[in-house]
Amino acid sequence: MKKIRIETSRPYDAVIGENVLENAGTYMRESGISAQKAFIVSDDTVLSLYGLKVKKALESAGYKAYTLAFEHGEKHKTLATAEKILSTLCAAEITRGDVLVALGGGVAGDVCGFCAAIYLRGVPFVQIPTTLLAAVDSSVGGKTGVDLPQGKNLVGAFHQPSLVLCDTDVLRDLPSPLYAEGMAEVVKYGMIRDEAFFYKLAAREVSVEDIVLTSVKIKADIVKNDEFDRGERMLLNFGHTFGHAVEKASGFTLSHGESVAIGMCIAADYAEKTGVCAGVLKPLAEVLSSYGLPTENPFEKAELFNAMTGDKKRFGDDINLILPAKIGRAEIVKTPLEIFRERFFAL
Amino acid sequence: MKKIRIETSRPYDAVIGENVLENAGTYMRESGISAQKAFIVSDDTVLSLYGLKVKKALESAGYKAYTLAFEHGEKHKTLATAEKILSTLCAAEITRGDVLVALGGGVAGDVCGFCAAIYLRGVPFVQIPTTLLAAVDSSVGGKTGVDLPQGKNLVGAFHQPSLVLCDTDVLRDLPSPLYAEGMAEVVKYGMIRDEAFFYKLAAREVSVEDIVLTSVKIKADIVKNDEFDRGERMLLNFGHTFGHAVEKASGFTLSHGESVAIGMCIAADYAEKTGVCAGVLKPLAEVLSSYGLPTENPFEKAELFNAMTGDKKRFGDDINLILPAKIGRAEIVKTPLEIFRERFFAL
Repeated sequence: MKKIRIETSRPYDAVIGENVLENAGTYMRESGISAQKAFIVSDDTVLSLYGLKVKKALESAGYKAYTLAFEHGEKHKTLATAEKILSTLCAAEITRGDVLVALGGGVAGDVCGFCAAIYLRGVPFVQIPTTLLAAVDSSVGGKTGVDLPQGKNLVGAFHQPSLVLCDTDVLRDLPSPLYAEGMAEVVKYGMIRDEAFFYKLAAREVSVEDIVLTSVKIKADIVKNDEFDRGERMLLNFGHTFGHAVEKASGFTLSHGESVAIGMCIAADYAEKTGVCAGVLKPLAEVLSSYGLPTENPFEKAELFNAMTGDKKRFGDDINLILPAKIGRAEIVKTPLEIFRERFFAL
Repeated sequence: MKKIRIETSRPYDAVIGENVLENAGTYMRESGISAQKAFIVSDDTVLSLYGLKVKKALESAGYKAYTLAFEHGEKHKTLATAEKILSTLCAAEITRGDVLVALGGGVAGDVCGFCAAIYLRGVPFVQIPTTLLAAVDSSVGGKTGVDLPQGKNLVGAFHQPSLVLCDTDVLRDLPSPLYAEGMAEVVKYGMIRDEAFFYKLAAREVSVEDIVLTSVKIKADIVKNDEFDRGERMLLNFGHTFGHAVEKASGFTLSHGESVAIGMCIAADYAEKTGVCAGVLKPLAEVLSSYGLPTENPFEKAELFNAMTGDKKRFGDDINLILPAKIGRAEIVKTPLEIFRERFFAL
């Protein structure tokens, strides 16, 4: 078992290792969560797999445990789902002295975390990610939220968890497309911050525990410097600006991880052809392929460009491109939209 | 025109005086709000009274102004109303660089403020209170939120406005019951923090401008020390613990202000009879009566006690009573529920 301290406005630990689910209650007590009630929020699939195990673990540590499951899937990451959870919290008389527990992938973590942020103007919560993607990405850093019909994550709050519990046994049991999805983000961390880690991934010389550990360390390091997403944290968007456009163009038939994998390759190609770096695309595409991820963009540039600039409202007349300078280092390159258009279509 | 600095984690000004609505855009520009778009959220009644005036004021300062009205009344202070507002913000392509404007009473301020807190994980907003209650209470201090079917303000966020604009002409035009409702909170400020102000109110020697100014100063002073409501800010609940029970017992036929007026008298009576103070109830009741507010509790003690302890979950086995020590000073008295029950029924 390894423990990492996440230094935000309210610091907390991430615990990563084997048998973490069975000992969830003990870890929570050890981290000082003195609540009487623990309210587990999950989706129906994850609850049926791990709900009982976690509930027992919490009860054996003296928590009165409750469970609530919503229907799985991104399309249930809505204000309506949040409202149901909030009403159930009221019915269970959950107070500011109690704790919520997000058990599941990114959707459960985001929705439960958002409810924790706004119920009684803020109650504590614990993240127990059950997918590699959630473990290395959304469970750490305090971004919570839900989607609106107009787009993803348009509503939310910054609300740091009190503890993150990541069970590597659960991650090892993941079906391989779900595992691959998480690996896209893992490769991203190597690309933006850690050359040695990147090449270990390429050589497959790294355990699941170390994959999560190193990824969370890199994310924590970036979040520490920019908790509220005003600058450096944008580096975490490497592959995402193009990736979101790819995801949209595919009608969401490509997963987030697959889209980000393609997005990183587009960004690397763009960076090489505009002279920002050299020799990056090939090793990147190789490592992504080796983890079962796609690397070729099947869509028209015009379609991607329109999808990206539909997000234009997020950055005015410029677009912040996250580009690799080399393996292990990325940069934020603010580019006027017109110049970006020219260069992108010239690829 | 008077200006007060509110010292919170993100400091801002409250501007109080005549012709403030007409100059709203200018004040916003002067305070550094460089947004392109300003999105006014109001209720139907207030929008028909002041919407056009404020919209013109914003446009003349170069903002592109939008308006949205929801149906007036506390029963529309819901997540459903928030969702409609959030969707409309998307449709208008409002970004983090734009600004929301809450125009109205407490409901508009709370709902709009909540939407500002969670839209894109937080956008700036301006409070333009149009009732005395909102001017002296909810528009300052950063508490935002909506109700759930189970109770008031159960969902929300701490989100400070960027500016508070209070037009005393608007307050002077208020129908007298709405004015009286605000006066209950104003008297509260005198009771908890400022003896001289209390006696000026009793002698009716104070202008509307000074009423708002002094009230906001006292509230700002308390919020500065306890922005996130962990201690001293509880003093602002003087009259409210009993008052909420009175409001509930009346089936919400008594207004919030009327209920708080009665609640303050119950608290003063309790404080006198338990030896916490002397000679407080009489002057308190006199000044409340002189502003058209009720002072006698028409309900059974058992009913109030049950309503108060229905909130038991908020404080465990103790209840935090806010009691006057004298005119101009209140104290937080943590009392075991059983002792409170005995003393309350012995009144």
